[in-house]
Amino acid sequence: MAERLVVVGGDAAGMSAASQARRQRKPGELEIVAFERSHFTSYSACGIPYWVGGTVDGPEALIARSPEEHRARGIDLRMRTEVTELDLDRGRVRARDLDGGVRESWTGFDKLVLATGARPRRPALPGIDAPGVHGVQTLDDGQALLDTLATTGGRRAVVVGAGYIGVEMAEALIDRGYSVTVLDRREQPMSTLDPDMGALVHTAMCGLGIETVRGAVVTAVLTDGAGRARAVATEDTEYPADVVVLGMGVRPETALAAAAGLPLGESGGLLTDLGMRVRGQDAVWAGGDCVEVLDLVSGHTRHIALGTHANKHGQVIGANVGGGYATFPGVVGTAVSKVCDLEIARTGLLERHALAAGLQFVTATIESTNHAGYYPGARPMHVKMLAERRTGRLLGTQIVGREGAAKRVDIAAVALTAGMTVEQMTALDLGYAPPFSPVWDPVLVAARKATAAVRAAGA
Amino acid sequence: MAERLVVVGGDAAGMSAASQARRQRKPGELEIVAFERSHFTSYSACGIPYWVGGTVDGPEALIARSPEEHRARGIDLRMRTEVTELDLDRGRVRARDLDGGVRESWTGFDKLVLATGARPRRPALPGIDAPGVHGVQTLDDGQALLDTLATTGGRRAVVVGAGYIGVEMAEALIDRGYSVTVLDRREQPMSTLDPDMGALVHTAMCGLGIETVRGAVVTAVLTDGAGRARAVATEDTEYPADVVVLGMGVRPETALAAAAGLPLGESGGLLTDLGMRVRGQDAVWAGGDCVEVLDLVSGHTRHIALGTHANKHGQVIGANVGGGYATFPGVVGTAVSKVCDLEIARTGLLERHALAAGLQFVTATIESTNHAGYYPGARPMHVKMLAERRTGRLLGTQIVGREGAAKRVDIAAVALTAGMTVEQMTALDLGYAPPFSPVWDPVLVAARKATAAVRAAGA
Repeated sequence: MAERLVVVGGDAAGMSAASQARRQRKPGELEIVAFERSHFTSYSACGIPYWVGGTVDGPEALIARSPEEHRARGIDLRMRTEVTELDLDRGRVRARDLDGGVRESWTGFDKLVLATGARPRRPALPGIDAPGVHGVQTLDDGQALLDTLATTGGRRAVVVGAGYIGVEMAEALIDRGYSVTVLDRREQPMSTLDPDMGALVHTAMCGLGIETVRGAVVTAVLTDGAGRARAVATEDTEYPADVVVLGMGVRPETALAAAAGLPLGESGGLLTDLGMRVRGQDAVWAGGDCVEVLDLVSGHTRHIALGTHANKHGQVIGANVGGGYATFPGVVGTAVSKVCDLEIARTGLLERHALAAGLQFVTATIESTNHAGYYPGARPMHVKMLAERRTGRLLGTQIVGREGAAKRVDIAAVALTAGMTVEQMTALDLGYAPPFSPVWDPVLVAARKATAAVRAAGA
Repeated sequence: MAERLVVVGGDAAGMSAASQARRQRKPGELEIVAFERSHFTSYSACGIPYWVGGTVDGPEALIARSPEEHRARGIDLRMRTEVTELDLDRGRVRARDLDGGVRESWTGFDKLVLATGARPRRPALPGIDAPGVHGVQTLDDGQALLDTLATTGGRRAVVVGAGYIGVEMAEALIDRGYSVTVLDRREQPMSTLDPDMGALVHTAMCGLGIETVRGAVVTAVLTDGAGRARAVATEDTEYPADVVVLGMGVRPETALAAAAGLPLGESGGLLTDLGMRVRGQDAVWAGGDCVEVLDLVSGHTRHIALGTHANKHGQVIGANVGGGYATFPGVVGTAVSKVCDLEIARTGLLERHALAAGLQFVTATIESTNHAGYYPGARPMHVKMLAERRTGRLLGTQIVGREGAAKRVDIAAVALTAGMTVEQMTALDLGYAPPFSPVWDPVLVAARKATAAVRAAGA
């Protein structure tokens, strides 16, 4: 009899794992059952802000592979079906048909993949669940937000949180003609960067007409007579809002795993080995937004919800479940984003991360241009580097600029992975031609300054 | 008494070395005399095609630092002065004032930096020196070409050679309203890439209205009654030309060094140690387009004329001459270019280079897009990878595409420097967001396919 693989969660990690396992083993050898509670599979959640903003059509365009396509490839996919319990001892999961009332049933497994994703942080505040308050984690969320925008007469939007999703949603709502206020709890702007680099983003956002309020502690969502959101209240004042978007990041969706006694890390994500098998388990793998990943720079595990990691996890899990071999060695913490034409990128550790990891470091920040200054369209680019004291090992890089800024962070991402020092980086043979780079690429300029800083700091 | 440093050649390598040495040692400790035979110092030769094409103003915009600025920083710079002999035994150089008749004089040195650059390949063919035939190596060359364009009534240009300079000059002349024919000796298009990738460039150039002739062996430049170039003759036919541009690459300008008995490599470039000191010499350094550099992938030395290397050499030489310490570890052979909106990039070895180095390899070529397919403006991107048989070590990467293609090669350049395998590359944490990359960056897709090819090739 064929083994049965059960996959919980039908987005990037889960369906990549299922597809990869399917490629390795025939249906007669491995039966694959996948459960997905939403209406969609294998979609790009990262594309939701651009769908909401009207830059891309959706939701179809965001879907890499539909339920029908998965089924045609031999995966028994059960949509709108929520897994409600993991029974690891007996090797079975309990699932409920969300559209069919209260019907629940058990499905046995030989191997289990958990890809339950993440959910938006939603603090327990009065009114937080009122109509008009939206997360943007799933395509269902995106559709719900678009429905609200279509039926709301107003023009004022409040975004709570100034991380990547927050700034991307600010741009989306500007594109929809809303006046946008971004409220952030922290005193520093753009908490995904160091304060000095975040300040550049803050200034640019103001220039784009996005009101950004720092140190804004939200206390409630105020509702109107019909119970709909009408304003966001902070400790100091209130901000009228026809629509409220939550951009405070996400938490791993690991309630099921926790109930089953599986090991969770400090951020609440599942802990796995390098083959993405859940620690201490023989037959359970996990990947995507519900796991913690090893940060190769700090040595800690972290929760990073990002589609590119989820896809890699799925490939690794599928290979291992299918009897092959693959590992996910870890991440260096690369992230890129944009708000209008401002590109924002980071990789490795911020200053506060480095301090938390017990690392001593120097920093160097430079301003250069995306390409030769004399070539038309040269725009400023700021690069900040952190390097370990004494060893000079690169610890992190942040870049803020216009065209060509974001993907330059990949240079530093590879250098971090390879454990290079900033002095080694000064000799990197990077592509140079006037339309693409100054003769000293901004990353090289930063590496030179960081090298000098390491030397100046001495022993 | 102060030591005297003599620098031969006032462009990137020479003046970077002089400037860096100046920063390290005061005029009372180190006198610096620099000789430059042209009218310009410290300029971007790589910008000449864009100046000729009218994209950038010139020549001033291409000059990073003028003779006056260098002099103000304490460098005794002698313009329009050509060094005609190196007397290493007696520690002196003979120089001639090009604007002052035949005056020659000797200048002694304690330390010598050779930065004599390169000169365009100019085969000994009938008519090759006729008016209307132009190299584009120096600002003087660029000005002479622009003078010809301004005084020539015609509209037909022939570019000889389809390397980087050839295609960039083709674009420049198109921009000037010329109809352009590119003649290349080889049967394969774009010899800086493998034939399969070069074919993509060839097709795109045809689409831009650039006539490209392969296997065209030039036999003469035909002249009119006044002795001006009027056509380029090949073995098969002739191509009318109001202006002829030589884009056949460059050779190291090392006649002086050869006459002085300094060691030259197979390409005719000076051979140095890792500190850029000429091999076997105590007091002579060399850098820029007149030297050969270590190719870290093949282990051979190569001649690569590129401003970004020249600037690094200058920094290293200046540090060492000034009593500090720096090295230039070598290159991986990265080059980027464009013709109109087509971006062309490579790093590491081509197939023929790998064969010549005794390496066995597999290849993988993929087509992807510069960013998420659903995000507006997604354009095709082709990536080819070479990986060593068995070990899977990355040997080279070539990319042809539109926006965002060229600088992606930096990812592979860093991976090559670090000695990564293509399988290690599949796990790289590269920046992902829909406006910047598909969820699998094209470089990752190529690395995955190359990994599979390594595995399929077996032992």
